[in-house]
Amino acid sequence: MSKIIAINAGSSSLKFQLFEMPSEEVLTAGLVERIGLDKGVFTILVNGEKVKEIIDIPDHSVAVKMLLSKLTHFGILDSLNEIEGIGHRVVHGGEIFNDSVLITDETLQKIEELSDLAPLHNPANVVGIKAFKEVLPNVNAVAVFDTAFHQTMPERSFLYSLPYEYYEKYGIRKYGFHGTSHKYVSERAAELLGRPIEQLRLISCHLGNGASIAAIEGGKSIDTSMGFTPLAGVAMGTRSGNIDPALIPFIMEKTGQSEMEVLDILNKKSGILGISGLSSDLRDIEQAAEEGNERAETALEVFGSRIHKYIGSYAAQMSGVDAILFTAGIGENSDIIRSRVLRGLEFMGVYWDPERNQVRGEERFISYPHSPVKVIIIPTNEEVMIARDVQQIAVPVPVLH
Amino acid sequence: MSKIIAINAGSSSLKFQLFEMPSEEVLTAGLVERIGLDKGVFTILVNGEKVKEIIDIPDHSVAVKMLLSKLTHFGILDSLNEIEGIGHRVVHGGEIFNDSVLITDETLQKIEELSDLAPLHNPANVVGIKAFKEVLPNVNAVAVFDTAFHQTMPERSFLYSLPYEYYEKYGIRKYGFHGTSHKYVSERAAELLGRPIEQLRLISCHLGNGASIAAIEGGKSIDTSMGFTPLAGVAMGTRSGNIDPALIPFIMEKTGQSEMEVLDILNKKSGILGISGLSSDLRDIEQAAEEGNERAETALEVFGSRIHKYIGSYAAQMSGVDAILFTAGIGENSDIIRSRVLRGLEFMGVYWDPERNQVRGEERFISYPHSPVKVIIIPTNEEVMIARDVQQIAVPVPVLH
Repeated sequence: MSKIIAINAGSSSLKFQLFEMPSEEVLTAGLVERIGLDKGVFTILVNGEKVKEIIDIPDHSVAVKMLLSKLTHFGILDSLNEIEGIGHRVVHGGEIFNDSVLITDETLQKIEELSDLAPLHNPANVVGIKAFKEVLPNVNAVAVFDTAFHQTMPERSFLYSLPYEYYEKYGIRKYGFHGTSHKYVSERAAELLGRPIEQLRLISCHLGNGASIAAIEGGKSIDTSMGFTPLAGVAMGTRSGNIDPALIPFIMEKTGQSEMEVLDILNKKSGILGISGLSSDLRDIEQAAEEGNERAETALEVFGSRIHKYIGSYAAQMSGVDAILFTAGIGENSDIIRSRVLRGLEFMGVYWDPERNQVRGEERFISYPHSPVKVIIIPTNEEVMIARDVQQIAVPVPVLH
Repeated sequence: MSKIIAINAGSSSLKFQLFEMPSEEVLTAGLVERIGLDKGVFTILVNGEKVKEIIDIPDHSVAVKMLLSKLTHFGILDSLNEIEGIGHRVVHGGEIFNDSVLITDETLQKIEELSDLAPLHNPANVVGIKAFKEVLPNVNAVAVFDTAFHQTMPERSFLYSLPYEYYEKYGIRKYGFHGTSHKYVSERAAELLGRPIEQLRLISCHLGNGASIAAIEGGKSIDTSMGFTPLAGVAMGTRSGNIDPALIPFIMEKTGQSEMEVLDILNKKSGILGISGLSSDLRDIEQAAEEGNERAETALEVFGSRIHKYIGSYAAQMSGVDAILFTAGIGENSDIIRSRVLRGLEFMGVYWDPERNQVRGEERFISYPHSPVKVIIIPTNEEVMIARDVQQIAVPVPVLH
């Protein structure tokens, strides 16, 4: 038995989850927020209760030290020596990493070099990696990439129809994100369907504040809706998804904004928030729509229909589909969005039960038993995927005597 | 019987076709090129033979006078009084024009105002309209819009998930183009299928140097792949189609180009030309791919698969499809592209015959007779659509005695 910690570091935050492996029991989880700002917030689960502390946390290194001291302080661990592996979520693995990897000086340098492709995320991930290395220098660490699962995409999916030298010189191509989640739900779906994943054609809908759809054939991602960045694809909480690219120069001219200001609007003021003018939180929009707000209703329509279209598109890509999977905040919880995504797909063999769809956050088939295409809600678990990869890559297999 | 002339004016060109109506017989057709440049080229069909003249043509007004004088000169018309109506193709009708319209001072002013949405095209169309008005002031003229057919799209299709005020203030939405062609082939398909168009769900693939796909339900466009501009959607000869919008700022930063320079690359150096590095002409690419050129093969793959995905997407939009239609240069002539678009769609009822697909530019069913979804090649005819609209709107119905 070994204890493994899964880390997701942002520029001013650090999420963690501590696992007992291989049982996958969650020993604790928590979150450090407002790192480097005043009034940092440290939250940790102790015996299922949230314990919260407000305290200045100047940098990630302090956050890590604090987190580790709390583990022993609350008796979750007897000693830090029990931690046998650390898993770090890293957003961008470029074309270099098509799987999780042991973090060495060399791999860390490569992750830093990839910051060009994910300027907001990879540097924060690197800060998290370095902070743990400082405090626990002798514990093996593994990087688990959001992009790795999608590295199996064929050229026809990942190549943009741009001048080819942009791909060669600048790495401009579709990378895709949420790979750890798409991988988790697709593997879980194979278990639930009782069929080898090699034989399955799956469409996975990861619908959270960020949202992406993936076409997974034989266990391999062959296409996904996000692109070079997580801005592309379907409409999201605040992100536009795909738009006519000619709109960027047009908006720049009309509003006098720079390209970076327009990009900021596409990332932060668009999507469900932009259409509704109300909120980026789908729950607010569902409520407003129910109360008769027309633009909220339009936002639901747009959000649902864009995903619906991807389902058709990816079914065509795989010459059919065996199961459609819903995961993440909206995918697991919103029966309204699921029904808008699914309605009218009988022509391709999707028959689902509105009654069974009335559920929140529960693993469940919502297709009828006779439906040729199954529809399954599968709560995602990126942290356990990270822990599994750490277990496999970083933790020495005990020798049996 | 009346004679109607259909006009397609560009910034330095003017295409024309003269019809006998209602028989729709083509009396002549031709093209004026290099207007306003040195060595203009005037080409006209006389008894099926091309007659060509090289001569300086300073402006559109001169081009129109020349064209009209040639009609009598070659005895195609006895007198210009025989011309009872003129039809002008106009690219952008915005949200104002959802059908063809008689050109009055008021409508012409509106068309000029829409130049903001189509700065390259509408001004040229207006120049053409004015030139004819000057020379034939008493002949009724009709504007036929590329966008009009798509004005039936529902909000969920035409609205981008951008801040809503961009739609209200700047008219930013999906308009779609090639409407006259999509309308023509959908109406012709209903005739060929022997079913009322109101009952049909059609996917129309207009594949030329520009390419767009339309979902047509009950005779109405409910979605289309082009967007605010003709840049959006599938990959084209030189246009990128949809890309991650975040790529524009990224390319600007990497290459030091302005947003207008990047836009120019997306419009003129991307698509099939960009991927292959060889040519924007699909025939060149097909040949190079056959000779083993890998990037030409990739260009074919990308071009075909993006259209293939739209078919799935639009079938999902309409809860199924009754017929898939191919038109325009590539759609009518390339069996290679048609086969890449169609392969693997059996799951949604598309069964087609590779033998029957071996055809160029001929109206033909290429689906098997038993296929639930029909596949039909239909050569497009935008000019005859223009002539029909002129006939209906501008030519007085003779009173029967």
